[in-house]
Amino acid sequence: MSKWEDNVRKVEPYVPGEQPNDTNIIKLNTNENPYPPSPMVMKAMQEVTEEGLRKYPDPTCSALIDALADYHKVNSANVFVGVGSDDVIATAFMTFFHSDKKILFPDISYSFYSVWASMMEIPFEKVPLADDFTISPEDYKKENGGIIFPNPNAPTAMLLEKGAIREILDANPDSVVIVDEAYVDFSGEDASVLDLIPEYENLLVTRTFSKSRSLAGLRIGYAIGNEKLIKYMSDVKYSYNSYTMNETSLKLGVESVKDDAYFKKTCDAIVNTRENFTKELLKLGFNVLPSKANFVFAGTDKMPASEIFAKARENHIFFRYFAQNRIDNFLRITIGTDEDMERVVRFLKDLLA
Amino acid sequence: MSKWEDNVRKVEPYVPGEQPNDTNIIKLNTNENPYPPSPMVMKAMQEVTEEGLRKYPDPTCSALIDALADYHKVNSANVFVGVGSDDVIATAFMTFFHSDKKILFPDISYSFYSVWASMMEIPFEKVPLADDFTISPEDYKKENGGIIFPNPNAPTAMLLEKGAIREILDANPDSVVIVDEAYVDFSGEDASVLDLIPEYENLLVTRTFSKSRSLAGLRIGYAIGNEKLIKYMSDVKYSYNSYTMNETSLKLGVESVKDDAYFKKTCDAIVNTRENFTKELLKLGFNVLPSKANFVFAGTDKMPASEIFAKARENHIFFRYFAQNRIDNFLRITIGTDEDMERVVRFLKDLLA
Repeated sequence: MSKWEDNVRKVEPYVPGEQPNDTNIIKLNTNENPYPPSPMVMKAMQEVTEEGLRKYPDPTCSALIDALADYHKVNSANVFVGVGSDDVIATAFMTFFHSDKKILFPDISYSFYSVWASMMEIPFEKVPLADDFTISPEDYKKENGGIIFPNPNAPTAMLLEKGAIREILDANPDSVVIVDEAYVDFSGEDASVLDLIPEYENLLVTRTFSKSRSLAGLRIGYAIGNEKLIKYMSDVKYSYNSYTMNETSLKLGVESVKDDAYFKKTCDAIVNTRENFTKELLKLGFNVLPSKANFVFAGTDKMPASEIFAKARENHIFFRYFAQNRIDNFLRITIGTDEDMERVVRFLKDLLA
Repeated sequence: MSKWEDNVRKVEPYVPGEQPNDTNIIKLNTNENPYPPSPMVMKAMQEVTEEGLRKYPDPTCSALIDALADYHKVNSANVFVGVGSDDVIATAFMTFFHSDKKILFPDISYSFYSVWASMMEIPFEKVPLADDFTISPEDYKKENGGIIFPNPNAPTAMLLEKGAIREILDANPDSVVIVDEAYVDFSGEDASVLDLIPEYENLLVTRTFSKSRSLAGLRIGYAIGNEKLIKYMSDVKYSYNSYTMNETSLKLGVESVKDDAYFKKTCDAIVNTRENFTKELLKLGFNVLPSKANFVFAGTDKMPASEIFAKARENHIFFRYFAQNRIDNFLRITIGTDEDMERVVRFLKDLLA
């Protein structure tokens, strides 16, 4: 090893999920949306100009921020945008979790939380989920340097009720509490805690265009919170990279936000498919956690999840499997189109027959 | 102040340069390219598909990395890509400057170096340029945690000869040395130190699509170096955000690399315009530092630079002015088209008459 390597930050390299290109595959492993983005998004592509590509994009991302503020009925000063919610949450970690106290998040949760904490040298504690895979507010009533959890949680797909989140917020006025709402657009009307922001200045809510807006390929995420939170994050962002959102993300993102009818229609379709698919899984004898996301988390005693995973793969159906204590007999299955899920049901029926 | 604010990372907020939208403006303040991107880039926009936007982009960015490796006649394992060279360099800081020793960079240089170091809590020392604004290799022969400088330097536009860079590399086998070649495509054939990479495993060279490739709006930067360096950077990148380059950047970036004839033609045009413009400035009595970039750094005793800056602005001509010791009587003027620069010369002639 050369001496310059002493100064290298050593990290546990994260291996991103597979992105096979074969069009014959039913790809239900990364929680992408099976429907295309709004036709207005595709049309906006024609409006990206030479001038727009030649010049630096607007570093303040004001068109996109204004559109989101408008949509959520908040002020533009309450909105932060970034390159996917990964960028938004990483920036929030860097901004708000700058202490020696441990941050808290569920032991079964989005795997990137511990990766970011490790990389940024933030101490952390994984708080075990209850036996029924729920988050217990009680467990978050101790000293901490910050709190984050997805709601609905991933990969469990389970939603924490607003009363429970209030309990966590009430117990933690001295920490920033981040609720990662990547999947909340599939959770029904009153699931989001956006309406609690006026009450809790330490509550940050994050969202993404990758799931409900069918735009994983564009990389757009955002956060909504008190003006002070957003200002602190923007200061850190401008100190890291002023121009992160490219011209196409900014232009196309705005169009996605504008086309609310299409957005609602596709979200409803996925929720509907999820409910039908869940019924079919139950009929096949699966244990299915109650899902409020665009995926289900399910397993059966009839065959190990790892085996179903492997067999599905042989049949060009991609699920997600986590070889992790307590969840190693579950599969995370993204909700595709009705046709996709019918094919999955037929496959499982044959497999378990 | 609320208690949660104790845990907030406090940074010196960086204020990005102005991006006025008025089309009547001659915008020579951010070193953008006056020519549009290659027609092949614009054409590739038509090939971005619904499927490409709906799904996550290729996290390994292999098409773009392969195109760049091919172009520079290196292996794909020698190339790292990111969201502009700001992202690439910030990732390099995070990866390689993880020690308690001070990193070194010139006092007059890209202003983001000290911003990144401050934000990441990396100790640093600004090494004064010599009186003639050159970088002296002698000054970089002391203990350090890493070295970075742009070549050509910004905002001086001056190129450091390869022999001098070799001297710095020979004296620092135990540090990573980053040569930020954002402007090197305007510096002539033998200016780049890419050819030194096989000799120095600790040399990282960074580049951008924002200047010579007319694609500031897309946000693409890259680094070339020893396989080990690139692997360390990729590990950190995947630990931060696996999907940073969006589908349009990946697709359009490849086309830009392929159209080498257009690239060379526009770079040559800018160099030619720069030489003519420099002659005109000299005729007007300006002191012009010898430029090998797509901008010149110039001032005159006839009028303070700050005043020329303000008057130009009133006349819809935007330059860049730095109210900084030693360079506060200079203006950084981006090279535009011949027509742009003729208008600038007429303006300066009238102003100083």
